[in-house]
Amino acid sequence: MSDEASPHHQLNELIRTRVSPRFFAPRPMDRETLALLFEAARWAPSSFNEQPWGFVFAMRDDRESFDRIFDCLVPGNQTWAHTAAVLMISVARLTFTNNARPNRHAIHDVGLASATMTLQATSLGLGVHMMSGFDMAKARTSLGIPDGFEPVAAMALGYPEAHANMPEKIRERALAPRKRKPLGDFIFRGRWGDPGNLAPVNPGPARGD
Amino acid sequence: MSDEASPHHQLNELIRTRVSPRFFAPRPMDRETLALLFEAARWAPSSFNEQPWGFVFAMRDDRESFDRIFDCLVPGNQTWAHTAAVLMISVARLTFTNNARPNRHAIHDVGLASATMTLQATSLGLGVHMMSGFDMAKARTSLGIPDGFEPVAAMALGYPEAHANMPEKIRERALAPRKRKPLGDFIFRGRWGDPGNLAPVNPGPARGD
Repeated sequence: MSDEASPHHQLNELIRTRVSPRFFAPRPMDRETLALLFEAARWAPSSFNEQPWGFVFAMRDDRESFDRIFDCLVPGNQTWAHTAAVLMISVARLTFTNNARPNRHAIHDVGLASATMTLQATSLGLGVHMMSGFDMAKARTSLGIPDGFEPVAAMALGYPEAHANMPEKIRERALAPRKRKPLGDFIFRGRWGDPGNLAPVNPGPARGD
Repeated sequence: MSDEASPHHQLNELIRTRVSPRFFAPRPMDRETLALLFEAARWAPSSFNEQPWGFVFAMRDDRESFDRIFDCLVPGNQTWAHTAAVLMISVARLTFTNNARPNRHAIHDVGLASATMTLQATSLGLGVHMMSGFDMAKARTSLGIPDGFEPVAAMALGYPEAHANMPEKIRERALAPRKRKPLGDFIFRGRWGDPGNLAPVNPGPARGD
């Protein structure tokens, strides 16, 4: 008996192989590739098609801008994010453009755009590592993010480094088994807490986050 | 000269063709397929791997549960969502499990999981239409969503109906050109408002949202 499910019931390859890289190879990203990642984000859906997302990016060779974002990261993230080809901060516009009312879905929709970008990156052999560990107030000030907008996540992008080339501590973590809750913990039928009774179909990748 | 970019610079097919269907074909979804969509969501990244997402679903043939979610939708969404094979509500856990501190990224990370699920659906010929138009308070009560958790979005899933089989008003909207802001409106280099100067690479799909 094979562990492989029928082709119809495969987890999509990009979703199955996406990881948040903990170290990047010293390979620059060209501007066309970066534009394509943003193009992917652009086509994400959003509440009332508001597209409440924004991204401030810095390429590695643009040292001043790169350091400005890098300096917002918490020290734990700085230990590896210095290898990224691009750093960015995602930003949410908190009100609707046409009536200035609060957009309750702004941050959710930034997530939709960011996940879309991440899977586009995966399809090009790149990786995106999102981070909550950064100084929001500092990002707001040093990147000039205006009132009514909120810095959401820091993101490191680049070509993932081979495990053999990683510093040992980072490699250990990258090689650790991936962990996720079972479906039964978060999928409910009809009412919160009622079992969904959906059998797991396919394992994800064995390693990385 | 061709409009096609080099294969390396293609927008991924799933991202390019994803739309939020406005009407679904009368084709049921099997439980294995549904499980696979949730499996895709399960492998999304999240802040501290908290996986703050939950989903309450109802399949069409489970009428009582289906109507319970359907009744939470605003009338405008009820006009078409009755054709969905599955309705669901996404839910965010607002605090971290291990220390009960607020998780500022909970709703963002529900967005990551939902976008991942949506692209998995696209890869199986299915569509997901997320809706902000539903009664949150009613969803909380009728689905029994506990304190500390928040209903985020309603979602309709199913096999998209052919344009020819849609009611005329819905078809008109489904056939309208897709609209998105240009990259220059939301991508900035180094500082908010500074032009990214990234040329658009590839058009998205011509129709749908």
